[in-house]
Amino acid sequence: MTRKTQIFPRLNWLLNYQREYLSGDLIAGMIVTVMLVPQSMAYAQLAGLPPQTGIYASIVPLFIYGLLGSSRALAVGPVAIVSLMVGAGISQFNPQNLSQYLNLAITLALLVGIIQVVMGILRAGFLVNFLSHPVLTGFINAAAIVIAVSQLRHLTGIITPRTEHTYETLLYIFKHLNQINWLTVIIAGLSIGILLYFKYGLHHRLKQWNMPAIWMIPITRSAPLVVVVLGVFIVVLFHLDSKIAIVGHVPAGLPSITVPVLDWHTWQRLLPTAITIALIGFMESISVAKSLASKKREKVDANQELIAIGAANLGAAFTGAYPVAGGIGRSVVNFSAGANTGLASIITAILMTITVMFLTPLFYYLPQAVLASIIIVAVIGLIDLSVFKHTWNYNRADAISLIVTFFTVLFIGVETGIILGVSVGLILFLWRTSQPHVAIVGQVGETEHYRNVLRHDVTTYPHIIAMRVDESLYFPNAQYLEAILLETIVDNPDVKHLVLICSAVNYIDTSALEVLDALVKELRDAGVGFYLAEVKGPVMDKLKKIGFIDHLGEENVFLSTHQAMCMLKQHGRF
Amino acid sequence: MTRKTQIFPRLNWLLNYQREYLSGDLIAGMIVTVMLVPQSMAYAQLAGLPPQTGIYASIVPLFIYGLLGSSRALAVGPVAIVSLMVGAGISQFNPQNLSQYLNLAITLALLVGIIQVVMGILRAGFLVNFLSHPVLTGFINAAAIVIAVSQLRHLTGIITPRTEHTYETLLYIFKHLNQINWLTVIIAGLSIGILLYFKYGLHHRLKQWNMPAIWMIPITRSAPLVVVVLGVFIVVLFHLDSKIAIVGHVPAGLPSITVPVLDWHTWQRLLPTAITIALIGFMESISVAKSLASKKREKVDANQELIAIGAANLGAAFTGAYPVAGGIGRSVVNFSAGANTGLASIITAILMTITVMFLTPLFYYLPQAVLASIIIVAVIGLIDLSVFKHTWNYNRADAISLIVTFFTVLFIGVETGIILGVSVGLILFLWRTSQPHVAIVGQVGETEHYRNVLRHDVTTYPHIIAMRVDESLYFPNAQYLEAILLETIVDNPDVKHLVLICSAVNYIDTSALEVLDALVKELRDAGVGFYLAEVKGPVMDKLKKIGFIDHLGEENVFLSTHQAMCMLKQHGRF
Repeated sequence: MTRKTQIFPRLNWLLNYQREYLSGDLIAGMIVTVMLVPQSMAYAQLAGLPPQTGIYASIVPLFIYGLLGSSRALAVGPVAIVSLMVGAGISQFNPQNLSQYLNLAITLALLVGIIQVVMGILRAGFLVNFLSHPVLTGFINAAAIVIAVSQLRHLTGIITPRTEHTYETLLYIFKHLNQINWLTVIIAGLSIGILLYFKYGLHHRLKQWNMPAIWMIPITRSAPLVVVVLGVFIVVLFHLDSKIAIVGHVPAGLPSITVPVLDWHTWQRLLPTAITIALIGFMESISVAKSLASKKREKVDANQELIAIGAANLGAAFTGAYPVAGGIGRSVVNFSAGANTGLASIITAILMTITVMFLTPLFYYLPQAVLASIIIVAVIGLIDLSVFKHTWNYNRADAISLIVTFFTVLFIGVETGIILGVSVGLILFLWRTSQPHVAIVGQVGETEHYRNVLRHDVTTYPHIIAMRVDESLYFPNAQYLEAILLETIVDNPDVKHLVLICSAVNYIDTSALEVLDALVKELRDAGVGFYLAEVKGPVMDKLKKIGFIDHLGEENVFLSTHQAMCMLKQHGRF
Repeated sequence: MTRKTQIFPRLNWLLNYQREYLSGDLIAGMIVTVMLVPQSMAYAQLAGLPPQTGIYASIVPLFIYGLLGSSRALAVGPVAIVSLMVGAGISQFNPQNLSQYLNLAITLALLVGIIQVVMGILRAGFLVNFLSHPVLTGFINAAAIVIAVSQLRHLTGIITPRTEHTYETLLYIFKHLNQINWLTVIIAGLSIGILLYFKYGLHHRLKQWNMPAIWMIPITRSAPLVVVVLGVFIVVLFHLDSKIAIVGHVPAGLPSITVPVLDWHTWQRLLPTAITIALIGFMESISVAKSLASKKREKVDANQELIAIGAANLGAAFTGAYPVAGGIGRSVVNFSAGANTGLASIITAILMTITVMFLTPLFYYLPQAVLASIIIVAVIGLIDLSVFKHTWNYNRADAISLIVTFFTVLFIGVETGIILGVSVGLILFLWRTSQPHVAIVGQVGETEHYRNVLRHDVTTYPHIIAMRVDESLYFPNAQYLEAILLETIVDNPDVKHLVLICSAVNYIDTSALEVLDALVKELRDAGVGFYLAEVKGPVMDKLKKIGFIDHLGEENVFLSTHQAMCMLKQHGRF
């Protein structure tokens, strides 16, 4: 069930474009733009970048994704979690000025793009499996809290110093509550109220008004635009521009071509951040793309998506933007509004171009508190603390991964949290899988069935032990296998024959082969014969090829446990 | 099959000591000492430490292991691989003088000891499973080459500068061949010749002479002592002490109590080396201990061994020594010479004490070339290049781990090599396990058996698909499972029912549960019913507890595939 990854697989939507697609694509492209204009500026602010960087990140990357992506509905662009990681990654460098900061952002986009494209070409999309669900949930919950706290300065007007740690920021705000700017708080409160009402309350009201379903989405999702327009209006009306923080001058015009830093030392330092962004960004994109595609019974090719999103990031790197990914909220809207092809993305990109060319003066008086409100409302929906209890009840090992990731991200840092969470997950996985279920079996009545002696009333012989291992034999359990077999013969000093039943063994790796090799010798030294039974065909082929069967002796391999037992109980009693 | 780990489990050998044990313990203790005196000095030289450090490492650690160890035969002390890692780890610090170097060595012993004891108490011995066979083999082969090259300066008398890289040393020697000290080469050549003859040739000769077997081992294993005595004799006789490098003054007397560096910053920098030594040292010890114990049908408790070897390392830290482990060669000799209890270790320790108190003046004239020869002959036996071909033929993924570890250790460094080897191993493992075998099944004839449609002539229905996954569902394959199920319904547009057969599923982790949760919704959105069949008892219990069965609907879970098919083919055709 593998498919060839093509570089331009979806260009056929262009070649086979059908007229009836157009209205859906147009409407979807427009609605997404309405969300994207305020969001792109807000997320750029979250990343510590000027607002136009967010708009730039919504032009060329969207064009490229529209052409290369395999998902019809994925809306690529700036997203909250990636923006947070960009900000955290760049601050490590202590950039001295904005141009240095910008340079690092586009270099990060370049690296993320290269990593994603290479992973896609190598078909290494499976690597995101390291980001297990507990690690992702722990990360997203903590990241949402970190993001929310980082926006408190904009919501309160208390100018917090740049600190590394979330609790330091909280502490600072607590200590300087007297510096609060109440005007900022009021505007932020109003914005958040409106955004929450549009998100949770408006739906019911519109239904009561018998609003046609097709209008529901555009209206409920236009909240960010509404608060932006209202915010600008209030500032201008009441001349608040000297009393609260505003966005200020946003340069008009298209981004110029930018050249990322091509310095190996810088690359090396950015690499951990870039790898994390490449994986997390892709994970967010592919999960929403898959979920939307399945609703229309369509396929999404993970490796093709890696190439498309990677190429979008490369586009970002050369047009003054910063790393992008597929956003969950905007993609859902894109899908619901009827996006049929990549044209929807391209229409959004064109509208964003118009915005940056002609509309930036409108954002001069936009309060930063409004952008912060948009961020807060977006990320607060990501926080789900019930998942801790849920996971703890279901699986302790997963809960430990979750908790470690959550607290490390919260108190130490984004990348450290993910690395630690993944490591803990792998260690706990190794621990679980290193002790597979092993049963000593005996004959059930006069049948040819052999079952666990602990659970069934079976016949056994003191000089023979037959053991069944319920797992493939490979490096995590190779040592355990050796220990358990040797212990068994120590505990049963009369045993002369040991039969290993391989009915559940799909695979024997080199580590386990080495252990089997040693076992044959060790057991012989201890005066115990070693036999295999029920070895599967493919496993047997490999064991023969490598010479293990010759070493063991072909007469010591039995087709079935029953055959082995019959043979050994006859001539073995000496 | 678990046992409680006791801190002093083997003290009962002391309490229950039987008189007939004594002769074996005495002889084994003496023979091991004969090997250990020259080896301990040689390995200390390999670690960049003065010779007495090696002797100190053979006193208190042996006492402690003798009391705490669960293996009768393991001979603890300085070993080649660990000595190499100590040298490599300390050189990173660029220590300015010998006392600084020594301080770092004892601190390393302290950290290794702490790590091993803590791992033992936490029963975390399973962590060595990360060191799969390919990683270990690649590491040992490369380390043996690195060690051999590092000794070329002593074999040739060409004073190479301290370089980080093996190929630089080789290159330097090649360029400065004119500086060769022929006297050194002759002595080294003679030593190596004698050592190799004792190792490979003498055995046959002694047999021809009808030498009793009990004398064979002491004689063949005394080679290091023979070359040491001969070396000293030749230097004294021909007054060569100014013409070749000699060991020089070895301080007599017991080690003084030493206090390791207790500085967090130093600890942090030593930690990667300490972790690697703790794992590799333990791995070497436990594998030889297990193999020897099995010959007498005895048990070795891995976690108890961790505590015992860890305690031995703590002993090393406070008596001016450096990290120790169980040596393969000496343990085999200890076993063959008849060691019955930990007393053999204690006798060796006593004899080493006598050596360091009274015999060190004898080593003044010992040529360093002789010590280097002992190292070379010890490690050359570790090199086995046939393993590359063997592994390649058996398992490509393991071969890649092996090759990556080998070349990284050789060209970059010991720890980087191990870390990279383990990572590559994990990635390839994840890759393999991320695509479990999935079969669409159909009914065989009129039976209740359902088998793979690709291999058997079976009956299927266009509106039902039954899929069997041959693996537990967990984070490495959760994404793949979702993709393959969704693709299947895309490829079969007539399908209205999808049955997932869980007969091979022993475990469903949180990542897979999340995917199943999403699948239920995604498939419903696509108009497909989702059913489970043959869910095992323990898995079912957990799914019920967490509410998944309620979410899916209890009526959608079938005991057998046959029941599911009968039900669905009846009412499902709409």
